[in-house]
Amino acid sequence: MSNYPGYRGESLTFLKKHNVVVGDSVKVSSDSGYMGILMPRYEYSDDNHIVLKLENGYNIGLKIENIKKIEGITSNSMKEEKEITKPQINSNLPRILLISTGGTIASKIDYRTGGVKPMLTADELNTAVPELIKIANIETEVLFSEPSEDLLPEHWNKIAKKLDSYATSDYKGIIIAHGTDTMHYTTAALSFALSGFPIPIVLVGSQRSSDRPSSDAALNLIAAARFIVECAERGIYIVMHNNTSDDDVACHLGTRVRKNHTSKRDAFQTIGGPPAFLVKNETIMRNFTGAYFKTKEYTPRINWETRVALIKYYPGLDPKIIDYFLESGYRAIIFEGTGLGHVGKVMYEHVGKAKKKGLFLGMTSQCIDGAVRMTVYESGRDLLNLGVVPLSNMISETALVKAMWALANTKNIDEMEKLMKQNIASEYSD
Amino acid sequence: MSNYPGYRGESLTFLKKHNVVVGDSVKVSSDSGYMGILMPRYEYSDDNHIVLKLENGYNIGLKIENIKKIEGITSNSMKEEKEITKPQINSNLPRILLISTGGTIASKIDYRTGGVKPMLTADELNTAVPELIKIANIETEVLFSEPSEDLLPEHWNKIAKKLDSYATSDYKGIIIAHGTDTMHYTTAALSFALSGFPIPIVLVGSQRSSDRPSSDAALNLIAAARFIVECAERGIYIVMHNNTSDDDVACHLGTRVRKNHTSKRDAFQTIGGPPAFLVKNETIMRNFTGAYFKTKEYTPRINWETRVALIKYYPGLDPKIIDYFLESGYRAIIFEGTGLGHVGKVMYEHVGKAKKKGLFLGMTSQCIDGAVRMTVYESGRDLLNLGVVPLSNMISETALVKAMWALANTKNIDEMEKLMKQNIASEYSD
Repeated sequence: MSNYPGYRGESLTFLKKHNVVVGDSVKVSSDSGYMGILMPRYEYSDDNHIVLKLENGYNIGLKIENIKKIEGITSNSMKEEKEITKPQINSNLPRILLISTGGTIASKIDYRTGGVKPMLTADELNTAVPELIKIANIETEVLFSEPSEDLLPEHWNKIAKKLDSYATSDYKGIIIAHGTDTMHYTTAALSFALSGFPIPIVLVGSQRSSDRPSSDAALNLIAAARFIVECAERGIYIVMHNNTSDDDVACHLGTRVRKNHTSKRDAFQTIGGPPAFLVKNETIMRNFTGAYFKTKEYTPRINWETRVALIKYYPGLDPKIIDYFLESGYRAIIFEGTGLGHVGKVMYEHVGKAKKKGLFLGMTSQCIDGAVRMTVYESGRDLLNLGVVPLSNMISETALVKAMWALANTKNIDEMEKLMKQNIASEYSD
Repeated sequence: MSNYPGYRGESLTFLKKHNVVVGDSVKVSSDSGYMGILMPRYEYSDDNHIVLKLENGYNIGLKIENIKKIEGITSNSMKEEKEITKPQINSNLPRILLISTGGTIASKIDYRTGGVKPMLTADELNTAVPELIKIANIETEVLFSEPSEDLLPEHWNKIAKKLDSYATSDYKGIIIAHGTDTMHYTTAALSFALSGFPIPIVLVGSQRSSDRPSSDAALNLIAAARFIVECAERGIYIVMHNNTSDDDVACHLGTRVRKNHTSKRDAFQTIGGPPAFLVKNETIMRNFTGAYFKTKEYTPRINWETRVALIKYYPGLDPKIIDYFLESGYRAIIFEGTGLGHVGKVMYEHVGKAKKKGLFLGMTSQCIDGAVRMTVYESGRDLLNLGVVPLSNMISETALVKAMWALANTKNIDEMEKLMKQNIASEYSD
């Protein structure tokens, strides 16, 4: 591995000249003084910045031409590396598979050293989060390594196919390390594609750069493993901090959850109720009493069709956007309407046109919480008359992903409408 | 006024035949039995339903062909009407202007009779909410009568011009009765257009059909009047229930508020902190310590330009949507990115193209809470390099409305960017 991953041109020359390498603790004088660890860079990076991870856990990009001085404090090679120990297999404990797809959690998992390793091996994990070995035998696999904002339906496909290949394994459950930005889109996608999957699938991320012992990465991983071993409830979940406390981790239903804060460790929230489960140290507390999948049989249908438009309605929206979607061959529209599920009368003509062309038209609310109820006001009833289908309290992100999936797995609009209304993976809550 | 407002064709014939008129309490046998008040209908209604307001306050549409029996219980004319009393002017109390624009609150303001009157006169108001007369001399004016999902920037224009005409009046403040669906878009619009307006402007709505004494309409109106009289703090606010309690009403900053629930009385929430003020019975509690408008001078700029696109990013979004906006002459894009302000790499080429064409590109987060921070991850820095402007913690709805306003009030993209970054009406919070 290069000492300068991601650096090129000007920045590479600069680092070589000053004799510092990625992983070093450095002191930089620029517009202000900074102390931090020199971080690697990624594809698409420019070549006139270096990136430091500061003590507060955040990364900062510093423009080379503004740097007055840079000096290494602790060199990478000098740093005391924690010894990597081969985990002992404990045959009394269940097996858990940990699949890594990228994101902060996967790249920073050896969080106590400050170094950056994008790969996650069982040995490294064991060294970084020694508590895990007491809970289960963790085996790891790297599927790909992408920040979650770059994931596409084809990545959902890869993940789902990989999971499907373990449907008859004897793992107690599967943990997926995943970036947080689009984690809830992925859980929704997997929930429909892998309906009835026989063992729990738990997505785990981290909200903070994790080079400190208090990082949420380790705690979320430990809670995920504990949930799988103790509870073993089938379903697709997101396990992340429940609040600022380090011994209260929430387990959210994967179709009822949103990332509701840009940076907090407890960014993920279940919409319309408490989290399904709480992992408080070694205790699992249950709030959710139903079954995640509404049919028991495992019926994989791994397919998405992206010609689904998402229209968030607002005053001033030009209804001609619908013409664009019609001309571009879109097959469905999910509205994020206002209030109980409305769009302005200005949209009616175009909504009617889309219906006539055979599109599926579904209504959710941009309020996020609460259900769409289109019989209360005249506007709602008008839209019902135009053929818009109310999607109750399904959240819009889940509805969008479900529409992509339903479109790919049905032959016509009537079948699609039926599938959209059916409660498959707790996307409709009581 | 007709006895059958909004009814025509089949439904009109049906009602006449059964000798019931709008406002009557009726008993209906259909798929189930219903008791309620026969409600008027609106434009665009079909002619094969009648609408009842049920005891629980909700309206229901019943298909005529399914109705087995309908009978009047109390006729409209027999009902004891509350006597409308001309309010006495109390010269010791301040004057408040109440402007009605429509919505549930305006159409149901005589909430104790169950009747529906779309107009709001001082006399009717006084009769319906007698507590108001002890707080202020309320004068009323009907500007228009529209459900808020039908409001457009031209309605913002009408409201703003009307308010501007009272900028030098001796009203203590102005209350605007408004539908709740897009109320927060209107407060954002007014906040920029009427920056520095000399007296408080308070928007009030109601979440529940208000034919019961516990309706939020009256309580919100009383709290709004109290806030104006006791506090008189300049700004544009939304005053609505703070929780399920009837003596805890929240006063939200108009640029920092969202409708976050489809039906609850406390649907509106301040994003990123507590409500600015609480009205608890006769006490005003202050959480907000700054000034709403960041400059004191009143500078009306009443203008919006709607060629602003809102793009919520999600996995599978086709980047070609940007080409459509470019070809259609759009001048700005507000992104609702993921997490700290990201879109997938798949968008980069098109984002760059939009920048080259001179569009303003602003980034907000679909997380809603928390700030955009585009220096933390490589994706954010890539987008900064492409010319995307991070809009910190401004919520996306406010950013969209502000962009429409900034576009209409600046000559070029540099001026627009400057205006978008400037904190004008507390749209950026600390």
